[in-house]
Amino acid sequence: MPVGLKYPESILSINGIRLSTACANLYSHKRTDVSLIELSEGSNVSAVFTNNLFCAAPVQIAKKYLSEFNPHYLLINAGNANAGTGDKGLLDAIATCEALAELTDCKKGEVLPFSTGVIGEDLPVDKINSVLPILLGTLSVNSWIDAAEAIMTTDTIPKAISKTVSLGDSAISITGIVKGSGMIRPDMATMLAFIATDANIAKDLLDNIILQAVNKSFNRITVDGDTSTNDACVLIATGKANHECIDNENSKEYSILANAFTSIFCELAQAIIRDGEGATKFLTVKVCGGNDQAECTSVAYKIAESPLVKTAFTASDANWGRILAAIGNSGINDLNINNVEVFLDESCIVENGKRASSYTEEEGKRIMQQDEIILMVNLNRGDCQEEIWTTDLSHEYITINAEYRT
Amino acid sequence: MPVGLKYPESILSINGIRLSTACANLYSHKRTDVSLIELSEGSNVSAVFTNNLFCAAPVQIAKKYLSEFNPHYLLINAGNANAGTGDKGLLDAIATCEALAELTDCKKGEVLPFSTGVIGEDLPVDKINSVLPILLGTLSVNSWIDAAEAIMTTDTIPKAISKTVSLGDSAISITGIVKGSGMIRPDMATMLAFIATDANIAKDLLDNIILQAVNKSFNRITVDGDTSTNDACVLIATGKANHECIDNENSKEYSILANAFTSIFCELAQAIIRDGEGATKFLTVKVCGGNDQAECTSVAYKIAESPLVKTAFTASDANWGRILAAIGNSGINDLNINNVEVFLDESCIVENGKRASSYTEEEGKRIMQQDEIILMVNLNRGDCQEEIWTTDLSHEYITINAEYRT
Repeated sequence: MPVGLKYPESILSINGIRLSTACANLYSHKRTDVSLIELSEGSNVSAVFTNNLFCAAPVQIAKKYLSEFNPHYLLINAGNANAGTGDKGLLDAIATCEALAELTDCKKGEVLPFSTGVIGEDLPVDKINSVLPILLGTLSVNSWIDAAEAIMTTDTIPKAISKTVSLGDSAISITGIVKGSGMIRPDMATMLAFIATDANIAKDLLDNIILQAVNKSFNRITVDGDTSTNDACVLIATGKANHECIDNENSKEYSILANAFTSIFCELAQAIIRDGEGATKFLTVKVCGGNDQAECTSVAYKIAESPLVKTAFTASDANWGRILAAIGNSGINDLNINNVEVFLDESCIVENGKRASSYTEEEGKRIMQQDEIILMVNLNRGDCQEEIWTTDLSHEYITINAEYRT
Repeated sequence: MPVGLKYPESILSINGIRLSTACANLYSHKRTDVSLIELSEGSNVSAVFTNNLFCAAPVQIAKKYLSEFNPHYLLINAGNANAGTGDKGLLDAIATCEALAELTDCKKGEVLPFSTGVIGEDLPVDKINSVLPILLGTLSVNSWIDAAEAIMTTDTIPKAISKTVSLGDSAISITGIVKGSGMIRPDMATMLAFIATDANIAKDLLDNIILQAVNKSFNRITVDGDTSTNDACVLIATGKANHECIDNENSKEYSILANAFTSIFCELAQAIIRDGEGATKFLTVKVCGGNDQAECTSVAYKIAESPLVKTAFTASDANWGRILAAIGNSGINDLNINNVEVFLDESCIVENGKRASSYTEEEGKRIMQQDEIILMVNLNRGDCQEEIWTTDLSHEYITINAEYRT
């Protein structure tokens, strides 16, 4: 059960974007598993990809094509990651792009491939190619939620968000979809995320925006500390909205747009955590009073990825000793532990290196029983602050991951 | 159920060491929870302690006393870690040493305190002090297994090992006990380990031996990647054996003894893993062909601490894609993934960055169903090799850690 996350509603279509989905039988049960996103001519596209060295074949191909062509189609499949598949994987990814290019009279480099699912099995190219005519025949501006559903793997709910932003006299729209639930500790990108806007913005500024927004959103979440081989985040600007092209980084319009994207990226990133494998809690881990960003995120991740801290949250047990142990283990050698404070929501639970005198077990229990909890650590040694989002670690996580392939 | 680990047998007494145990009611159920180890005069003692910044009060006191005095007693309690207890914790630890010193007419600094159990609760000093007369009255050379039992927390079985070594004409004995099951990723030391020998060896050489042996044993295991606040490993040489004092690092005798200790330390470290929280498998992760020790251990720990790899082992599922993802995520930026080979026991499962052509799912399944599995990664770029030991991640781990305080 996702934490504080409902089936998406009121998703806006984006002028210049059409989508479709189909069932290519990549799963043993019937479900949509292949999606197509069509981009109108003149769209600008920016993307970031996983830093995992064993990055998947489609990631390698998409990176290469994106550097040489303006994408016209994004072709996405679930059920098979096409990762750990060697040279054959590269040829397979290219084969699906070629097949689509032939049907649409575009170049294969104008098709970006994306895959998610089991690692190490060959991509069923024929199955995917067989549904391409269906995908092309059913493209619609209204299929965002369908696409959000077709890219799911262990996700339990489709994740889609829309926002409108006023830019002077004109309103621009942003819609994003994302999938991801386990193997989540994105590094420069998340699992699969596709975000589009009708805003008219120069390519280099779009590149800026995606890097900034990803850094504050998809690069600030962790379910299990495992960075996927297939992470990819794509930001599309179709330029169809009725306003002057934004090409000045110091303009008010750029700043409005950048903030809107950071906000929607954060919401999408948090949606992944809310639907994290086996999640029963949504945890915000804030670390303030650090000397720099690196030490704040180091402490935050050490807490967020400690199996002992995570299981204490599952049990609604304010076992703050485990939090102290994680902080003490985060590699800041000159940290004065007597200055460290730990808060659950508004309650101070640790000060001067020991339990706060005002803290009671009852208060801890009350807060820990909530679905959403803010854990804040004040290192009290600097001005830097960072926050990340994570889940607890429940029996359900084990069940999902001990049974995923079977 | 521990993996391949039986109730200890044939444990040797060590000339110069007596032990006793008692029940101080530190648990809600009846069990022995306080132990005393008495060291004869002239014993040399070396120790290493946790690197966790939030190290427990007894760790701070034991370190200080050991630097100033020759220990005469080790006083150990389970059920309470006396960690995260601030200045009061220090005073409490000292109070137990003082009480024992008064009863035995030694200095408080000749008593080293050790605690293990729940973090963040005040040490029940009165309860511990009340059993000191019982402990002193029941000291025996034959109580090693009793002590191994009294220091247990979530351990399911006492862990004790003995060995005899021939040094020229004389035989020397080594016996060690250890506790630890969760919050296990020791850093310069493990949970609690006490190892004694009747060998006659100079203090500085004993210091060498413990550092070398710990580095190859307790610093090569991980259950959950969490470094405890209370880790301590103590090595005692009573000097009662009938041989010349070993005081030359280049002597054959030193080398024999150092090897014997490394071997017994490794067996004790592995016993912790075999009894790791929720363990259903004992996994050896070997990484060879690395440029240096750091990159070999980095890859090994990334694999050993990946929840996705661990749950795949629980499920006996040779989901090698997760292993590749962990390797690709271990921070070696210039690794050529096409050179990486992965083996399960003797079977090559990955070569050239993809599934080995000789590998079959049946073979993978057969190996994964074993209780003990060797996972080997060859980076094929250097001559360095390291190995660590770990467990899988099962439902039982969650159950234990979501219920530990309740």
